[in-house]
Amino acid sequence: MRIVIALGGNALQRRGEPMTVASQRANVRFACEAIAKIVTDTNDVVITHGNGPQVGLLALQAAAYDDVSTYPFDVLGAATQGIIGYLIEQELGNLVPLEKHVVTILTQTEVSSSDPAFSNPTKFVGPGYTEERAKALAEANGWVVRQDGAAWRRVVPSPEPLGIFESAAIKDLLGGGSVVIAAGGGGVPTMFEGENLVGVEAVIDKDRAAAVLAREIGAQKLVIATDADAVYLDWGMPEQRAVLEAHPDELASYGFAAGSMGPKVESAIAFARSTGGDAYIGALGELEAMLQGRAGTRVSTRIEGLRIRAVPPRAA
Amino acid sequence: MRIVIALGGNALQRRGEPMTVASQRANVRFACEAIAKIVTDTNDVVITHGNGPQVGLLALQAAAYDDVSTYPFDVLGAATQGIIGYLIEQELGNLVPLEKHVVTILTQTEVSSSDPAFSNPTKFVGPGYTEERAKALAEANGWVVRQDGAAWRRVVPSPEPLGIFESAAIKDLLGGGSVVIAAGGGGVPTMFEGENLVGVEAVIDKDRAAAVLAREIGAQKLVIATDADAVYLDWGMPEQRAVLEAHPDELASYGFAAGSMGPKVESAIAFARSTGGDAYIGALGELEAMLQGRAGTRVSTRIEGLRIRAVPPRAA
Repeated sequence: MRIVIALGGNALQRRGEPMTVASQRANVRFACEAIAKIVTDTNDVVITHGNGPQVGLLALQAAAYDDVSTYPFDVLGAATQGIIGYLIEQELGNLVPLEKHVVTILTQTEVSSSDPAFSNPTKFVGPGYTEERAKALAEANGWVVRQDGAAWRRVVPSPEPLGIFESAAIKDLLGGGSVVIAAGGGGVPTMFEGENLVGVEAVIDKDRAAAVLAREIGAQKLVIATDADAVYLDWGMPEQRAVLEAHPDELASYGFAAGSMGPKVESAIAFARSTGGDAYIGALGELEAMLQGRAGTRVSTRIEGLRIRAVPPRAA
Repeated sequence: MRIVIALGGNALQRRGEPMTVASQRANVRFACEAIAKIVTDTNDVVITHGNGPQVGLLALQAAAYDDVSTYPFDVLGAATQGIIGYLIEQELGNLVPLEKHVVTILTQTEVSSSDPAFSNPTKFVGPGYTEERAKALAEANGWVVRQDGAAWRRVVPSPEPLGIFESAAIKDLLGGGSVVIAAGGGGVPTMFEGENLVGVEAVIDKDRAAAVLAREIGAQKLVIATDADAVYLDWGMPEQRAVLEAHPDELASYGFAAGSMGPKVESAIAFARSTGGDAYIGALGELEAMLQGRAGTRVSTRIEGLRIRAVPPRAA
């Protein structure tokens, strides 16, 4: 069984925690304890992950030192793939048998220069500035800046991932028995300018990239791990219902929050539709139970309609 | 033919140049133009590289922002493997046929906790401080600090590389036809604490790591690219002579500068002795000529003694 697991941001860095390596390691270890249980001789496992807080910290550090030598976002994304991949491969490597190699492969994700996202950048990245400073930086560097609460910040586009350049190499690694960490932060966004591949200052949604990767490497299962234990209809309302199983067409008829559950649901739907495989959305701690159909939300074309369960919101 | 190429620091960042991504890209492109010529259907090519200036910049940036969230050196090393690997794979990828994949694999290098280097740290890393500040940071963080010219800086150990954890995975990638970038900055130093692999704040000589990697993946050739066009005896003296070819035993009887040519010569000797293969030391621009025996210094157990040529130093 070939399984792609997309780790949510909180698998690495919980909101409000300091960005120390110790706190990130502790979170990564917790994630790896769940993942280690499904690293078996009969499973090929690929792990993808977010990088938002980490890339933000590198941008803050660079800006604090010297604006001149600040790396562009494609390069910072590559740096975070190294950092987070290292932490995951070391922690997971210590939990699985020694003969199971856990390796990180730097990933470039193809986007199209004609993606409409490039004419409407929406993703806030990097530090907050005063309006004056933000506009001066925008002028100097060709940035787009927008107001984000009290501060002004840079915005970059979030284009659709079209393909993963390392898919063939990842299949070689899986064939050799490695557990592979790939497409961190959605992969570095790259596009063709004529015959040349160039990096782009943009952010690719990591769940969408995971769905493309899972399709390209022939995975049967895609697990999108998140804070919630399942997809909910009418989330936060007294009548909220957890979705246990859904046909992608049925799930697509509901609306979900654009910034959080929306891309996860869309990625699960895209994977289920394009491959006939199973996509799961739920809590990382329930990874094994999800794959056994006992937890989370399962999306598959082999399911008819939608199976739900009423789960009233917990009292505050 | 399986070839490992170790890129020297100046292949990425020339002394005195600003640490912008544009200048690093330009240097990487120059290096890749030489490497692209030997990326053929019959060659397996692995590229290793240094990371000194890049890891130094990340440490400076982190210190400028906030000491609390500064990543330890093993994590910063992983970040630079992402950054530099990304630049090399993109530039080289644009110079070789599209079906040749160039991929970066994050590398952990094993060192021994009983390595004598740990009781005598010698490698300066990170920013310079006043004596007072340096000693306070040493006290707070368990660092060792030493005077480096006018400033005080942190020193870390430089232990011997014993093995590369990703060697099997790198062979899988080569088997699939990929060009592989690995062991950047010598790989992240890691060692076993009981049954657990942990990162170490240390720096591994990148040429020594390249020699270990080349042996483990069964390379026939190791090329150590550097500023000089060959190994010289009596370097800088009127009587200086370039070494064209040498048996490792013969070359080992001469002394070379500990900080620069010494580790390169020792790495070439170690590879030639342990594998029976050919090690080369010379200029990256002469890579093809070196492999054809027309440039650089070749070290091999199949050579008798030493073949030299008098090359008077150029007039200043």
